[in-house]
Amino acid sequence: MSTETKIRPLQESDKDDWRCLWTAYLEFYETTVSEEVYETSFARLLSSSDNEYKCLIAEIDGNPVGLAHFLYHRYMWSVEDTCYLMDLFTDPGVRGKGVGRALIEAVHATAKRDGVPSTYWQTEEFNYKGRMLYDQVATKSPCVIYEKSD
Amino acid sequence: MSTETKIRPLQESDKDDWRCLWTAYLEFYETTVSEEVYETSFARLLSSSDNEYKCLIAEIDGNPVGLAHFLYHRYMWSVEDTCYLMDLFTDPGVRGKGVGRALIEAVHATAKRDGVPSTYWQTEEFNYKGRMLYDQVATKSPCVIYEKSD
Amino acid sequence: MSTETKIRPLQESDKDDWRCLWTAYLEFYETTVSEEVYETSFARLLSSSDNEYKCLIAEIDGNPVGLAHFLYHRYMWSVEDTCYLMDLFTDPGVRGKGVGRALIEAVHATAKRDGVPSTYWQTEEFNYKGRMLYDQVATKSPCVIYEKSD
Amino acid sequence: MSTETKIRPLQESDKDDWRCLWTAYLEFYETTVSEEVYETSFARLLSSSDNEYKCLIAEIDGNPVGLAHFLYHRYMWSVEDTCYLMDLFTDPGVRGKGVGRALIEAVHATAKRDGVPSTYWQTEEFNYKGRMLYDQVATKSPCVIYEKSD
Repeated sequence: MSTETKIRPLQESDKDDWRCLWTAYLEFYETTVSEEVYETSFARLLSSSDNEYKCLIAEIDGNPVGLAHFLYHRYMWSVEDTCYLMDLFTDPGVRGKGVGRALIEAVHATAKRDGVPSTYWQTEEFNYKGRMLYDQVATKSPCVIYEKSD
Repeated sequence: MSTETKIRPLQESDKDDWRCLWTAYLEFYETTVSEEVYETSFARLLSSSDNEYKCLIAEIDGNPVGLAHFLYHRYMWSVEDTCYLMDLFTDPGVRGKGVGRALIEAVHATAKRDGVPSTYWQTEEFNYKGRMLYDQVATKSPCVIYEKSD
Repeated sequence: MSTETKIRPLQESDKDDWRCLWTAYLEFYETTVSEEVYETSFARLLSSSDNEYKCLIAEIDGNPVGLAHFLYHRYMWSVEDTCYLMDLFTDPGVRGKGVGRALIEAVHATAKRDGVPSTYWQTEEFNYKGRMLYDQVATKSPCVIYEKSD
Repeated sequence: MSTETKIRPLQESDKDDWRCLWTAYLEFYETTVSEEVYETSFARLLSSSDNEYKCLIAEIDGNPVGLAHFLYHRYMWSVEDTCYLMDLFTDPGVRGKGVGRALIEAVHATAKRDGVPSTYWQTEEFNYKGRMLYDQVATKSPCVIYEKSD
């Protein structure tokens, strides 16, 4: 029997698995979030509100092995919103099976179905493994990003 | 009498000046927007809605000479939102007087007052004049951006 | 018996293997060179002249599987020369065995033995597989390169 | 009478001016060189040897106001050499008069006259003033640079 990746929306019962996957993702970026952020974020993801992040879960054989967090938000240059894919993670144990690609495609398809024509994301310039995939499914922007938080 | 830059929120009576400034900005990026986008965007900017772009106008001697369009949106890694500064423009005739810097500082101060601790923006890698200013007031991110719209 | 990578200087009898490896490398960069360049380059590599490229060959079990072309040249900011590693290639069939790393280390060791303290090279920004190795053994420069040939 | 930029080879009598200009250039890169490097470099620049850097001086009204140090060296992919423009400097007091551009054009013309078809150089990614000029006269390479000196 062939192994298949299934992509589906986050549900209430995913809480422990979701937390585990997201924590592994945050570790990759060498960051952590507070307990309050875990609680607030999970509630927001399940809220079905227009202005909250949504979450898709990737499953293999019924086991959650990846996630994507994405947000629709206004875009000044068009009437339609744009979609920001902020977090994308696949369990290292199932890398190379197309889970990341399936999640990106599912986010983009979901956005288009919701009237949001384009999806964008950021990644570190030296995230070579990620970029090998991203170069295949998307276009690198000529832009750089500046951040101000002081 | 000294010339002074004043930063203030967009108002209904700015429509023609706003359109003129934004059009000049879009020309810099070699793009145009439809009549529908001008109308929809102006209405959204004035709506005072949480999930719409806001606009600050820079004036010198009572004349609008610059604008900033910015959006607060959810951020997965914190309870607080983040602020995306999408469009920033200063009339070429008044460059070098600190209008761009004043607009960035005003956007960031407004965001902080509204509980949004950080502001970010994108610019083309080769927008050297802009980056001379951005390097002084913000930090370049190590990230690249991917876009998917097919 | 364990498989071992041996690094040694190019010799006259390597001509066919060298041509084969270098051609595969040039294909990676989607370029070709003329018959004259093959002939001239091979003669120069064997000339032992100070101002010509040198070549190291990597062997596994006696079979040539990789090459490095490097040049010592003057450097304005020091009395010592610097070393430019122009071409580096490993047969795809033996990737992951440390051949590329062994060649870089051997070039750098050879240069240092010859009084040349530093080695540098270029690679395409999106040569992710190469950069995974380079990030481990060297430092990325903050510089960009401009070319003028018209 | 119009002011004119003249480009000419370095000569023995330029020693003090050359040292002054080069020191200012090195300061821009926040570096210094030893007395030995000044002496050795000046002698090499005047040696007319094939494998030494050459130097062009820019003059305005008889005063040295800029310099270029360039080297011809072997290039594996062609029979002809390539030209590396390592140092390029214009006195800040005469910026905007086309001195940098005139030096680049003169280096490239000199190289072509000597059978060297292309010239390349490096600059820091954030050297915006330089890059405004370079983008006009040359093509940015898609390559990054790695350095190994430990």
